[in-house]
Amino acid sequence: MPEHSESTKRLAILGSTGSIGRQTLEIVRALPEHYKVVGLAAGDNLALLQQQVAEFKPGMVCCRDQSAQTAFDGARVSLEEMASSPDVDIVVVATSGQAGLRPVLAAIQADKKIALANKEPLVMAGEIILAEMKKHQGWILPVDSEHSAIWQCLSGETQKPARLILTASGGPFLRCTAQQLSDVTAEQALQHPSWQMGPKVTVDSATLMNKGLEVIEAHWLFDIPYDKIDILIHPQSIVHSMVEMPDGSIKAQLSYPDMRLPIQYALTFPDRLANVTLPKLDWQKTKNLAFELPDYDRFPCLKMAVTAGKQGGTYPAVLCAADEVVVDLFLKKQISFLDISGLLEKVLSLHTNHPVLTLDDIIAADSWAREQVLRLAGGEA
Amino acid sequence: MPEHSESTKRLAILGSTGSIGRQTLEIVRALPEHYKVVGLAAGDNLALLQQQVAEFKPGMVCCRDQSAQTAFDGARVSLEEMASSPDVDIVVVATSGQAGLRPVLAAIQADKKIALANKEPLVMAGEIILAEMKKHQGWILPVDSEHSAIWQCLSGETQKPARLILTASGGPFLRCTAQQLSDVTAEQALQHPSWQMGPKVTVDSATLMNKGLEVIEAHWLFDIPYDKIDILIHPQSIVHSMVEMPDGSIKAQLSYPDMRLPIQYALTFPDRLANVTLPKLDWQKTKNLAFELPDYDRFPCLKMAVTAGKQGGTYPAVLCAADEVVVDLFLKKQISFLDISGLLEKVLSLHTNHPVLTLDDIIAADSWAREQVLRLAGGEA
Repeated sequence: MPEHSESTKRLAILGSTGSIGRQTLEIVRALPEHYKVVGLAAGDNLALLQQQVAEFKPGMVCCRDQSAQTAFDGARVSLEEMASSPDVDIVVVATSGQAGLRPVLAAIQADKKIALANKEPLVMAGEIILAEMKKHQGWILPVDSEHSAIWQCLSGETQKPARLILTASGGPFLRCTAQQLSDVTAEQALQHPSWQMGPKVTVDSATLMNKGLEVIEAHWLFDIPYDKIDILIHPQSIVHSMVEMPDGSIKAQLSYPDMRLPIQYALTFPDRLANVTLPKLDWQKTKNLAFELPDYDRFPCLKMAVTAGKQGGTYPAVLCAADEVVVDLFLKKQISFLDISGLLEKVLSLHTNHPVLTLDDIIAADSWAREQVLRLAGGEA
Repeated sequence: MPEHSESTKRLAILGSTGSIGRQTLEIVRALPEHYKVVGLAAGDNLALLQQQVAEFKPGMVCCRDQSAQTAFDGARVSLEEMASSPDVDIVVVATSGQAGLRPVLAAIQADKKIALANKEPLVMAGEIILAEMKKHQGWILPVDSEHSAIWQCLSGETQKPARLILTASGGPFLRCTAQQLSDVTAEQALQHPSWQMGPKVTVDSATLMNKGLEVIEAHWLFDIPYDKIDILIHPQSIVHSMVEMPDGSIKAQLSYPDMRLPIQYALTFPDRLANVTLPKLDWQKTKNLAFELPDYDRFPCLKMAVTAGKQGGTYPAVLCAADEVVVDLFLKKQISFLDISGLLEKVLSLHTNHPVLTLDDIIAADSWAREQVLRLAGGEA
């Protein structure tokens, strides 16, 4: 690996053994003169973390099992310490679910650039994160392919868009009837037709919950009201999202569904770097791009998420936390596919909204939601 | 019409009775507080020019028939005088064929913003126009829908694109066999499937010559080598063109095929203005976007134009001038559809290339080409 130069950006990767974390390391391997890994943090996949540490030799390492950290040479730090370290230029937040919340806040308070692949922190605590952003110089660089597409399309525009159009593949069950949906298995839900992703987001894509959470994320990232965010089903996953400008002109971003491109764009912004390992769209193979409006009846999670976003307060945090638990129960085969939306609806209907003043309000709502799911599922399972 | 304020831009419209000219006036009617017409220039449609003068009361008027100008109140000026007048902020060049060449140069030398809808000046004299641009502060704001799309997509990008992808509807004869092409009439060629345009550019779209000229135009406008400009047939004319950035990310601009949008964008750039008279894309109606590679054998004008562009020198001027004459002969039913490409090929094969040092080199090549077409067609007709 080349020497660290002035122009080399130093990365901390939170969630380095997950899908986004591994693909971030592929970008570093492809562009070694531009990026240096100075921090790696993972959950339970210690074997892969050890390999990554051996290859990239980061100065800081973090893993969930505190006792296991003695196995690593690097300085053992917490996620928040890594995210706010003066040795880091860009914090790649590739954790899953609620886990990214505190590190994101720590990174903002340390004026870092944050390449954000973990949508739940913004969904759960958008108000708090944006209030902190106003006080600091940091940036959130979206890594989700849809938000990266919107961000690329808005580049250079002097005005806000009139409308955002988030595309959705529709997931593996796009053509299933309500009856067929009642029988789908975790294995089927994990077979996404166009994207290779981690299990949580893959199941969320099958229920369209993921798209609902992305609407909330887009609302906060681009400061756009919910009624100006549309969803369009696009099964090929080539058009990653679009913006409609005030004059009616629409801009779209296209590429094969490969997360390495939005990851790399977040790292290179505002520039771009040639990378021969990224696939180029072949128009001899891409002959048709299809679009259709979503079916909110068969996929109730979509409307549920947008409604929670509009309600605001603690509703989005309850939704996110409850969804983490129900998806986990579904993957463990303890509940059915339709139980996912059923349980979420029940938890949301039981919730009393609270204003979000501090992180503690979020954490309390999160804990309450997790308990409710387990209680309700216990009665059902 | 509201009073002229500081923020009102003053327009001179060259070619005001043609398709682009009339649509530019529709934009002015829709946004009267933003634009004021201070100059109108037309060719032979005196009746419409009189109506336009009565409605917009420009200070300057120009028409081809010098004697007819006594009918107008406004100061009678030449095209070049209008294009360089200190009373003008933006010169809309909506003339056809070679007619825009001298006014474009006059506008550049007067440091004007030029909304350029007439592609031939850049195709014929790209080297001369770009050399003049370097000496002055003016801008060329592309109005062609493809170049406007590319320009919109490149907004905010810090690097040059790796590739431009110009889309083409394919014209009315996209599915015709070579045999069927031999029988098509001027009436059929004037029935464009997706765009409403003037007769010259509509016939050029049927032969795909228009797309070839646009490749040359894009080469000069965006300083991109010919081998990095691709053409993609897209019959719906919704995606107006695309750019591929160095990382492989593709950006596209979409809208219904309506020239008022690129006209307005050239006038509002870098901002955008809401305009309720412009159509918004309806995704319930736009369910499929199709793409295919062009057939260079059935549409020889496409390759002929790109080859002329690559050869440079006086070849593009010869091509443009010869094309003006052959299209005119075809519209007058003096030659067949296949004679268009046949005659152009002959003229190009007879031409000896010259370096382009001054405008006179262009004018001489232009005159030579027109004579050759008439001579060859006289022998054939």
